[in-house]
Amino acid sequence: MPTHDQQSGFQPSGCITLTTDFGLTDPFVGLMKAVILSRLPNARLVDFTHAVPSYQPALAGFWLARCWQFAPAGTVHLAVVDPGVGTSRGVVAALLHGQAKVQGQPQGHLFISPDNGLLLELERKGSLVLRKIDAGLLKRVGLKKVSRTFHGRDLFAPLVAELAAGRIAFEELGPLQPGLSGSGLPLPVESEQGIEGEVIAIDHYGNAFTNIEAGQLQRLAQPVIEAGGHRLALRRTYGEAAVGEALAVINAFGVLELAVSHGHAARELALRTGTPVRVGPAVAFGH
Amino acid sequence: MPTHDQQSGFQPSGCITLTTDFGLTDPFVGLMKAVILSRLPNARLVDFTHAVPSYQPALAGFWLARCWQFAPAGTVHLAVVDPGVGTSRGVVAALLHGQAKVQGQPQGHLFISPDNGLLLELERKGSLVLRKIDAGLLKRVGLKKVSRTFHGRDLFAPLVAELAAGRIAFEELGPLQPGLSGSGLPLPVESEQGIEGEVIAIDHYGNAFTNIEAGQLQRLAQPVIEAGGHRLALRRTYGEAAVGEALAVINAFGVLELAVSHGHAARELALRTGTPVRVGPAVAFGH
Amino acid sequence: MPTHDQQSGFQPSGCITLTTDFGLTDPFVGLMKAVILSRLPNARLVDFTHAVPSYQPALAGFWLARCWQFAPAGTVHLAVVDPGVGTSRGVVAALLHGQAKVQGQPQGHLFISPDNGLLLELERKGSLVLRKIDAGLLKRVGLKKVSRTFHGRDLFAPLVAELAAGRIAFEELGPLQPGLSGSGLPLPVESEQGIEGEVIAIDHYGNAFTNIEAGQLQRLAQPVIEAGGHRLALRRTYGEAAVGEALAVINAFGVLELAVSHGHAARELALRTGTPVRVGPAVAFGH
Repeated sequence: MPTHDQQSGFQPSGCITLTTDFGLTDPFVGLMKAVILSRLPNARLVDFTHAVPSYQPALAGFWLARCWQFAPAGTVHLAVVDPGVGTSRGVVAALLHGQAKVQGQPQGHLFISPDNGLLLELERKGSLVLRKIDAGLLKRVGLKKVSRTFHGRDLFAPLVAELAAGRIAFEELGPLQPGLSGSGLPLPVESEQGIEGEVIAIDHYGNAFTNIEAGQLQRLAQPVIEAGGHRLALRRTYGEAAVGEALAVINAFGVLELAVSHGHAARELALRTGTPVRVGPAVAFGH
Repeated sequence: MPTHDQQSGFQPSGCITLTTDFGLTDPFVGLMKAVILSRLPNARLVDFTHAVPSYQPALAGFWLARCWQFAPAGTVHLAVVDPGVGTSRGVVAALLHGQAKVQGQPQGHLFISPDNGLLLELERKGSLVLRKIDAGLLKRVGLKKVSRTFHGRDLFAPLVAELAAGRIAFEELGPLQPGLSGSGLPLPVESEQGIEGEVIAIDHYGNAFTNIEAGQLQRLAQPVIEAGGHRLALRRTYGEAAVGEALAVINAFGVLELAVSHGHAARELALRTGTPVRVGPAVAFGH
Repeated sequence: MPTHDQQSGFQPSGCITLTTDFGLTDPFVGLMKAVILSRLPNARLVDFTHAVPSYQPALAGFWLARCWQFAPAGTVHLAVVDPGVGTSRGVVAALLHGQAKVQGQPQGHLFISPDNGLLLELERKGSLVLRKIDAGLLKRVGLKKVSRTFHGRDLFAPLVAELAAGRIAFEELGPLQPGLSGSGLPLPVESEQGIEGEVIAIDHYGNAFTNIEAGQLQRLAQPVIEAGGHRLALRRTYGEAAVGEALAVINAFGVLELAVSHGHAARELALRTGTPVRVGPAVAFGH
């Protein structure tokens, strides 16, 4: 095992994060945790979200690409949004190399997901080593009976438990694979007139996350933001606007976010997933 | 303590699962966990579900009977759907014997619940040893003040913590009790014409779980399924149907489930709890 | 460290509770947990609630003041409802002294929150020692980059992890502060005619929590309760009323609660936050 770990640059910490569209009303998430704890009693589990809109793997990838960094080194990240469960879609493992401060200490981050576009956002951000999970491997970890409709419980949970326990190394998962399948989130279009993006998610507060990144705004001296027929000023935080005032911020996830101070932007500004968001220099919208 | 454990065939692992109708908006579940951790700091807690429809103990039992197997040996399963809290309804403990691979290792599964029908579905599946929880016992575990409206926090949580800690043995809980009170889920009716069942739950995806079991379908060569005025073909998994097509599967919980590929079956097929579901051989529905 | 602990009467147990308005749909809560586990791998985390209505710190304080007692001695309680995030609002730490049974054992309870009224309800119940968190301290715990919109992840989570790990003592957090900012929940008005209170929260079952405390009812021999145009009898528990009957109870949180047996009081009695609730002796409502 130490040999494997040195090869891959992954040394597990026993921490596992979960990102799914399973919801919290049924026992689907709990069953994954029960299976993980059966194989790794001391696993530490973190739920990123289980409320990804059904059948939108790319959106799960958006969150995962902006959350994994906050987990301990040596974390296995499991993400399952899987409309193709039980068909021939592949399962992929991705490794982000780490550098252990002390030899033998937890290092690196490992991602496991259906190969359906979920990891594309992560790949955009950094260089991943990809492996296609070998079906033969699953027998090795004692998976006799895998249902056709709930791989979260029957395949993914045991697999990440074994990885987090250090009983399977990244190299053993299967052959290297050159790229990822599926499609990612829409990218904003940049031109001399500015940036054309869109709303990709509405959060718990009604704030609208866009696909426009902080870095894209830097070239605009005084950016003016337009969405849903409203014009919004870019602020540093919510509290800088008066109560009830619409505003835009570069949020803590590094993207442009549309909000209403003490309000619910999606309702009050008629924003939803797919709503176009335009950013331009002050003159671009001049009348 | 070892003597007790050998008697009962239960040896705790420190794992506790929770199944309730408490919801996740209020601190009710968190309070149970706080109380458990106060008595057993290293307890490992798994939430199966806290979204059982209020006042439906039998439905909580449906999930519990299909989830407990995935938890580690030596787990204490607490299930509380308890409209009779504070009245004279009993509290019951049920034991499913286990066989430790190694002497002294965790074994068996223990269930604690109000005696209101919740455990009936579990009893249908296997033979349980039942004990009526003795009110005197509660004093022994230091329960001085038990509220009349929140036994989850004041009675059940301390009790399962003590059981999971191995400080109370199953035999000490109270006298043997011959059977369970309350009523279970409706059973499907089988006849020569086929099976008449019903929808018992709608899951997060809008898929309809029925009370028709996999085993009941085996005698039908080419089962035809009818529900909500729709006819559905039996598939092996969701992805076998075209996007938007209605289908039926034997799901990962061993029951017949009605779904729409990439859709929301409950909305699109007008299904809800109680909707009749008929399964027959191809000829039975002939016109 | 031991010196600090003896001074403050706080000795951490490694347990941390979380109370926020972050919701469970986005990865906000998961990110706080990831950050905590990165700094304190063996932290034990309890979610009290993440569904406090947005921008209502006082309501978060209501729950916290009635939940903390059930957590283990030595718990750090983090509560974040923070519309002023990123502005100049302060951050406060509050200590409730404990008495360790054995020297060196976990003792006391520590609370961390924006200084916006959240801890006022707690202060009403007992005497707190308050300290204003010193911005300079944050650098000491390695916080280089703190976002302006998500202090839960970037400031509060690292802070409570360090406190729960015993690497920062209460005394080091900053200077003593004489009182709390912000406003608390409305208090009921007591007069000879009775008590005028209001509904402050609707729970998962539709039951209405009021701001009228058990102690306030004691001076009324046969209290009669009126709310939403309905008159409700005071019962000891839900099951004492017939199915469908409205009732009032002193609930497990020590306040007057309005319910409907097996029903949803908020819907059936037209109750919502702010609905006036009057309690008087039987004669007070006489016609």
